Amino acid sequence: MNEKLTIYDTTLRDGTQAENFNLSVEDKVRITLKLDELGIDFIEGGWPGASPASTRYFEEIRNYELKHAVVTAFGSTRNFSKPPEEDPNLAALLAAKTRAITIFGKSWDIHVRDALRIELEDNLQIIEDSLAYLRPQVEFLFYDAEHFFDGYKANPQYALQTLERAVAGGAQCLVLCDTNGGTLPGEVATIIGEVSRHLNSLTVKTSVAPRPAEGEGGAELPVELGIHAHNDSECAVANSLVAVSLGVRQVQGTINGIGERCGNANLTSIMPGLALKMKHYFPAAENLHKLTETSRFVSELGNLAHHKYQPYVGQAAFAHKGGIHVSAVKRNPLTYEHIDPERVGNIRRILISDQAGRSNVLHKAKKFGIDLDSKDPLVSSILKKLKELETQGFQYEGAEASFELLMRKALGTCKEYFHLLGYKVISQKDPCALGPEEEVVEEATIRLEVGGELVHTAALGHGPVNALDNALRKALYGFYPQLEQVELQDYKVRVLASEHGTGARVRVLIESSDDDSTWGTVGVSHDIIEASWQALVDSITYKLMKDERQRQAEG
Amino acid sequence: MNEKLTIYDTTLRDGTQAENFNLSVEDKVRITLKLDELGIDFIEGGWPGASPASTRYFEEIRNYELKHAVVTAFGSTRNFSKPPEEDPNLAALLAAKTRAITIFGKSWDIHVRDALRIELEDNLQIIEDSLAYLRPQVEFLFYDAEHFFDGYKANPQYALQTLERAVAGGAQCLVLCDTNGGTLPGEVATIIGEVSRHLNSLTVKTSVAPRPAEGEGGAELPVELGIHAHNDSECAVANSLVAVSLGVRQVQGTINGIGERCGNANLTSIMPGLALKMKHYFPAAENLHKLTETSRFVSELGNLAHHKYQPYVGQAAFAHKGGIHVSAVKRNPLTYEHIDPERVGNIRRILISDQAGRSNVLHKAKKFGIDLDSKDPLVSSILKKLKELETQGFQYEGAEASFELLMRKALGTCKEYFHLLGYKVISQKDPCALGPEEEVVEEATIRLEVGGELVHTAALGHGPVNALDNALRKALYGFYPQLEQVELQDYKVRVLASEHGTGARVRVLIESSDDDSTWGTVGVSHDIIEASWQALVDSITYKLMKDERQRQAEG
Repeated sequence: MNEKLTIYDTTLRDGTQAENFNLSVEDKVRITLKLDELGIDFIEGGWPGASPASTRYFEEIRNYELKHAVVTAFGSTRNFSKPPEEDPNLAALLAAKTRAITIFGKSWDIHVRDALRIELEDNLQIIEDSLAYLRPQVEFLFYDAEHFFDGYKANPQYALQTLERAVAGGAQCLVLCDTNGGTLPGEVATIIGEVSRHLNSLTVKTSVAPRPAEGEGGAELPVELGIHAHNDSECAVANSLVAVSLGVRQVQGTINGIGERCGNANLTSIMPGLALKMKHYFPAAENLHKLTETSRFVSELGNLAHHKYQPYVGQAAFAHKGGIHVSAVKRNPLTYEHIDPERVGNIRRILISDQAGRSNVLHKAKKFGIDLDSKDPLVSSILKKLKELETQGFQYEGAEASFELLMRKALGTCKEYFHLLGYKVISQKDPCALGPEEEVVEEATIRLEVGGELVHTAALGHGPVNALDNALRKALYGFYPQLEQVELQDYKVRVLASEHGTGARVRVLIESSDDDSTWGTVGVSHDIIEASWQALVDSITYKLMKDERQRQAEG
Repeated sequence: MNEKLTIYDTTLRDGTQAENFNLSVEDKVRITLKLDELGIDFIEGGWPGASPASTRYFEEIRNYELKHAVVTAFGSTRNFSKPPEEDPNLAALLAAKTRAITIFGKSWDIHVRDALRIELEDNLQIIEDSLAYLRPQVEFLFYDAEHFFDGYKANPQYALQTLERAVAGGAQCLVLCDTNGGTLPGEVATIIGEVSRHLNSLTVKTSVAPRPAEGEGGAELPVELGIHAHNDSECAVANSLVAVSLGVRQVQGTINGIGERCGNANLTSIMPGLALKMKHYFPAAENLHKLTETSRFVSELGNLAHHKYQPYVGQAAFAHKGGIHVSAVKRNPLTYEHIDPERVGNIRRILISDQAGRSNVLHKAKKFGIDLDSKDPLVSSILKKLKELETQGFQYEGAEASFELLMRKALGTCKEYFHLLGYKVISQKDPCALGPEEEVVEEATIRLEVGGELVHTAALGHGPVNALDNALRKALYGFYPQLEQVELQDYKVRVLASEHGTGARVRVLIESSDDDSTWGTVGVSHDIIEASWQALVDSITYKLMKDERQRQAEG
C-alpha cells in the first residue's frame, strides 16, 4: 500500500461553473450527503457571501451530522485596500463556520498587475496575512495557488515566492492549480519536481520551519502539496495521477469532471486509478463499489444526461460489441477489461445478448425479498417486459419502487388498491376573466373506484400535475389515511428525444418518503401529466403495499 | 520545430466499435474526404472481408482522388492452419488494393494460448511471415501489437520477441497498443523507454538490420514506433502525448475519441496538443482551424450529440461564466484560455448566469448590435431585471434570444406582434369513453388579437404543450407565413427546486431554427404549460423581429 491521500471534491463550487449545470441549495445538501457516504474527505461547498444561495447552503448543512467528510468554505485572499480583520470576504468565510477553509491567491505575475492591479510584493503580503489571520480560527487551512503552472512558466522565482509566503501564513496544503487546463503531463512532472526540491531546501534551511498544527497539540506536520487540474487539454486525470506519483498528497476534482469550460479533473476516474492501480489509500477507496451510483446521482440532480462513454462508470464502459471480444470476455474477462466492473459498481454489458440483464433481474429479486430461481421462465418474461419498457424510455435507476412493482405484477402478487375511471386536467390562462396576466388556473377532476365505491372529486393546484396529485390524494385519504404520511421529496422531468420538439416523450421521476423510508418511481409518456400520473400511482401503490406487508410481518 | 509525426485515424474502423455509433458506406466515404481535407496522413477504412459493407467501402473510395491521405486496410495475422498465400484474411487485405496495410498480432502470452490456442513460437512465426508475405505487395506496412502493454507487464521477453519478429517480417512501424485502455502514463513511459532501448540494441548488434524500404530504391529507414491508446482510464490523450515525447512517431486515434467502451485516443485533442504545445509538425497541423468543423461533422454523420464539454472543439470549451473570469478574459484572453479558440476553429462565448455583471451585459449588447454606453442607467436597470428573473429561476445560458428580447423590451424597441387574450389546455384520460387505458387526449384552445383581428382556434397534440404549440402556430400562419420555416429543434424541462414536489417551478428551454440560424428561448412557471408558452412566444417574436430587421437592412 502506498501513501495515504486526501480527496477534495469541488463539484458544488467549481463544478457549478459548468455551462448548464446548476444546483439548488437542496441539491447541494443531497450531494454533500452522498459524497460523505462515499467517503470523500473534503467537500468544498461554495464561496460564502458570493450569493445568498451560497450563504444559505452553509447554514443548512450545519443541521446535518456528516460521517467523515469536512465541509469546506472557499474564497479569495483579502482585498489589498483593507486589513484582514476588516475584509468582508474573509469575514464571510469565517461566518460560514466550517472546519476547513481554502483561499486562493495569484501565482502569475501578469495577473497580479492586470487583474488585482497591485504590486508584486503587495500580493505576497495579502497571501501571507490572509492565511495568518484565518489560521488560529479554523481547523484545516488550504491555499489554492491559482494559475500556478502558467505563473511558474512565466516567472518561476515569483511563483515560488507566493508558495513560500503561503507556508509562512500557515497553509497546511499548497494546492497547485492548472487553472486554464493547458498544461501537459510532461510539464506538470517537471514543475512539481522543481517545486518539491525548492520547498525541501527551504525546510532544511529552516527559514520556513514545518508549521505546528494549531488546535492539535502542536505536533509538527510537513507542508503537503495538492493538485487542482482542469481538462482543457484532456489531460486532467493524467496530470493528477502524475502529480501523485511525484509526492502530491491532496487531489482536487469533481464528480464526472464537471466544471467550467471542459471541466475539472474527474474524481470518478482518478479515484479508481489511485486505489486500484496505484494502490494508494484514502477512505473513499473502500467504497468504490458506490462510485457508479454516486456518479449517476450527481448527473441526475444536475439534470445532465449521464455520459455514456465515461471511463469506469459510463453505461458503455464495460460494453462489448465485437464478436471476438465477446467470446474472449466470457472466457476470461481480463482479456478485454482493465478492471472488474463490480469494483466500481458498474456492470458488464454484452450488447447482443441478455446475459447481463438476467443476472441483474435475479440480483434485484433477491434484494426485494422475492424468491426467484434462475431457471424460472418468469425471469425471461420479466426481462422481456423490462426491455420493452426501456425502449419506451423507462429507466429504473432511482426508481426501484417501480421496478419492484413491475416484478410483483409479473408474479401476480401486486394488488390494485384503486382503479382509475378517468381524469381531466385543465390549465387555463385568461387575462380578461382571471385578472393579472401572470395568472394561470389549474384544475383536476378525477373518478376512481376504491373498494367497490365510486369517488368523483376535484382539486386546484400549483401547476397541472400538482392539481392532479391533490385530487388523487383527496380521493384516497378517506380509504387510506396513512397516505397523509407520504411526502413528495423530489420531482424531475427529462425530455427524452429532441426530434419531436414539444411533442417529445418525457420521463418523470418522483421521490417520495414517509417516516421510515424513501422510494423512487417513474413514468413515461408524450404527455407530462400522464407520465406524472404513472409515477404518482406507483408511489402510492408502493406505500400501501409496504404498509400491508409490514402489518402482516407484525401480526 | 520538433520531429515530424504521422497521424493515423481509425474512426472508420475502431471508432465504429462504439455503442450507438454506426456509419453507412456513404458516411464513411464522406468522412474520408473530410479527413483528407484536414490533412490526416493515414485513414484506416475497415477490415476488408469482415462484412460486405467493409469490402464495398474500399471499392467506393478508389473512385476518389485524395489530396494527401493514404487509405489503409486493417486485418489480422494469418490463421496458423494455412500458409500466408492461402490465408483468406491476407487475400482480402490485398484485394482492397490500398497503398497501406496494417495487421495486428498478439503480444500477450495468455492471448496466444487462450484465444489463438497455439504455441508461443507459432505466434511469432505467423507475425513474421504474414508481414513478409505482404511486404513486397504494398507501399506502407504497419504492425499493431495488440495488448502490448499488458503483454509486456505479464511477460516482457515474449512481448519484445513479437516486436523483433515484426521487424524481421518488414513492418515499417511497430504500433504499441493499449487495447484494454488500463495503462497509466507512468507505465507507458517506463515500457516505451525499455522497448526503445531494446530495439536500439538490436539495431546495433545488426541481428535485425534496418529494413530496406521496398519499392523506394532500397534506401535505409529506421523502424518507427507508434501508439494506439484507449481511454478506459481517461488517460488516452496523455498516454499518446507522453509516447511522442519519448520518440514515438505515429499516433493512432479517432475523431472525438469515439470507440469501443470508453473510446480510443482522441485525435481532436491530441493534434492541437502536439502542434500548438509540443511544436511537432504533421500536415494536419496546418489545418487545425478546420478541427471544430471536422469534429462536429463526424458527430453529425454518426448521429451522436456533439459533446458540449469536449476539449478544444466543444461548445463550452471557451465558454466563460464567472464574473471575475469574464472581465479578465476581455482584458487579456490568455488569462483564462490556454489557447486562442480560433486556432482550432472554435469561438469564445460569454455565458449569462447569476454571476453576471455589467461587463457581461455590455458584451452581449455589443453582440446583439445594441448601442449601449457603459454609463447608461439602462445597464443597471437591465441588470436589476436580470437578477430578479434569475431569482425566479430564469437562466439565459442557451436562451440568448430571450435575453435579447429582454434587453430590447428595456430599451422600448421590442414590438408586440400578437396579443394573448387567453388559452385553455385540457389533458383528459377516460378509459371508458376513450378506449384503451393508455389513451390520453390533449386539446388546446387559444384566443389572440393580431393586427386588430380576433383569432380563436383550437388544436390537438402529442401532450398538452404540443397541443398549445400547434394551436398558436395555427392562429398565426395566416398573418406570418414565414413561421412555417421555424422548426423546434430541442425542448428541455428542468424542475427547479425539490421543496414543493409536483408543485415546484419548472424552467423550459426551447431551441428553434429556420434556414439561417438557431436560437434559444426560456420560460419559467409553476405550470409547465405556462413556462412552455413563454418560451414559445419568445421564439416566435424573435423570428418575426429578426426577419423584420433583415428586410429593413436589405432595403
